[in-house]
Amino acid sequence: MRPLVVKLGGSVITDKRRPFVVKRAILKRLARELAAAKVPLVIVHGGGSFGHPVASKYGIAEGYKNKNQRMGLSLTHRAMERLNANVIEALQKAGLPAIAVQPSACAVVSGGQIQSMELAPIQKLLELGLVPVLYGDAVPDLSKGMSILSGDQIVAYLARELKSSRVVLGVDVNGVCTADPKKFKSAKLVRRITPAGEKFVASLGAGKGKDVTGRMGNKVRELLALAERGVEAEIVNATKPGVLKRAVQGERGLGTVVEG
Amino acid sequence: MRPLVVKLGGSVITDKRRPFVVKRAILKRLARELAAAKVPLVIVHGGGSFGHPVASKYGIAEGYKNKNQRMGLSLTHRAMERLNANVIEALQKAGLPAIAVQPSACAVVSGGQIQSMELAPIQKLLELGLVPVLYGDAVPDLSKGMSILSGDQIVAYLARELKSSRVVLGVDVNGVCTADPKKFKSAKLVRRITPAGEKFVASLGAGKGKDVTGRMGNKVRELLALAERGVEAEIVNATKPGVLKRAVQGERGLGTVVEG
Repeated sequence: MRPLVVKLGGSVITDKRRPFVVKRAILKRLARELAAAKVPLVIVHGGGSFGHPVASKYGIAEGYKNKNQRMGLSLTHRAMERLNANVIEALQKAGLPAIAVQPSACAVVSGGQIQSMELAPIQKLLELGLVPVLYGDAVPDLSKGMSILSGDQIVAYLARELKSSRVVLGVDVNGVCTADPKKFKSAKLVRRITPAGEKFVASLGAGKGKDVTGRMGNKVRELLALAERGVEAEIVNATKPGVLKRAVQGERGLGTVVEG
Repeated sequence: MRPLVVKLGGSVITDKRRPFVVKRAILKRLARELAAAKVPLVIVHGGGSFGHPVASKYGIAEGYKNKNQRMGLSLTHRAMERLNANVIEALQKAGLPAIAVQPSACAVVSGGQIQSMELAPIQKLLELGLVPVLYGDAVPDLSKGMSILSGDQIVAYLARELKSSRVVLGVDVNGVCTADPKKFKSAKLVRRITPAGEKFVASLGAGKGKDVTGRMGNKVRELLALAERGVEAEIVNATKPGVLKRAVQGERGLGTVVEG
């Protein structure tokens, strides 16, 4: 059966203002909501306040430039493992046989982009009925030395290669809006984005602070590339109880649908 | 530079009689001894009292037979991650930029044997000056559904594929003996094993309780296959302070040398 790929945003499961703090109650609830899915799941989570501060301190995303970054890569990956352990244990408690799949061990990355990934273990785990859990990671990079492989890129890669039926991205806002909803009350939810809406997508910016919609640009671009291959995606608000559950059970139109 | 592959036996770093107990003082000392190496290192550790009890409870080594084993695989791998986290953090504190490389994410295993392994990330990590750390793991298995991939098999595979200069196995006895040294005072240390000593090797048995030398049979067979390819190995007592350090710094003859 074609798996559903679900992303848990780093801002949803960690406190972005406090390093290394998990939002335990929310993670527990989301684990239960995911356990209500009736299809095979692949879960990917972001780095939130675990990976980002350490990666940023050592400049991992800029590539290998000095020897301090050796320990930086070591510490950044370890921080991501700590967050991942929290996610795995929450899923196990909700009854899901979740198992980590370390991106920096199985992905071949060059210039920050996945060149290939060893998928045989993931495919076998899905066949057995387990739930593979990947995450944004600090990785060795064949051209830059080291780089950050984002959870969003892993989601898009796996959805394509595993011939996923659908992708659900759980974030901390209602979906893609006309402006950053955390800053502007006038921001309106965009219900549907298609490749035809390229003008709007261009207005989303390149991510980070310069992105007016609150860093949605890169997510939408990854999802549009998927949409063109026939994989439908939806960005939903996972901080609202029950929304992720309804989404993984097949309900559409809860946030922003991205389709071809 | 060709890496030195070092194995830390599960009995050395965990208390085999008490589940989930790390021998912290010993692990701290061994991390410092490893930090004294002057060559690139790849470290592999065993499961000890973390992986073995859980794997045994769910019969992971026997292959997939019932649905309970899904959670069994999930829990066994998680137990190994917990031990690995202790090893990584001890190495980091000793100044080594250690990074986990999850075997169940990068190895393709069938019938309990490694068919292939994604080595590009490990090779890049070594090139950068990091220390990859692998471990015996519960893995998806293409033919049996699931199985146990031993640390010893990983050591032999990596030594061969990474064209390792030498292998050092740290165990809790002085080396390979003529009988189990934990049970018989008359047991004598065997200083050197070569492929010519096949009669003696046959007497070592198949491992587990039936092995008169205390489970050394499989280790020696893996190492002899390596020796025939020109990779020298030595089994040393890592519980004696300073022995592992001297071995990783190049000293020979501290335990049992296995060579071609």
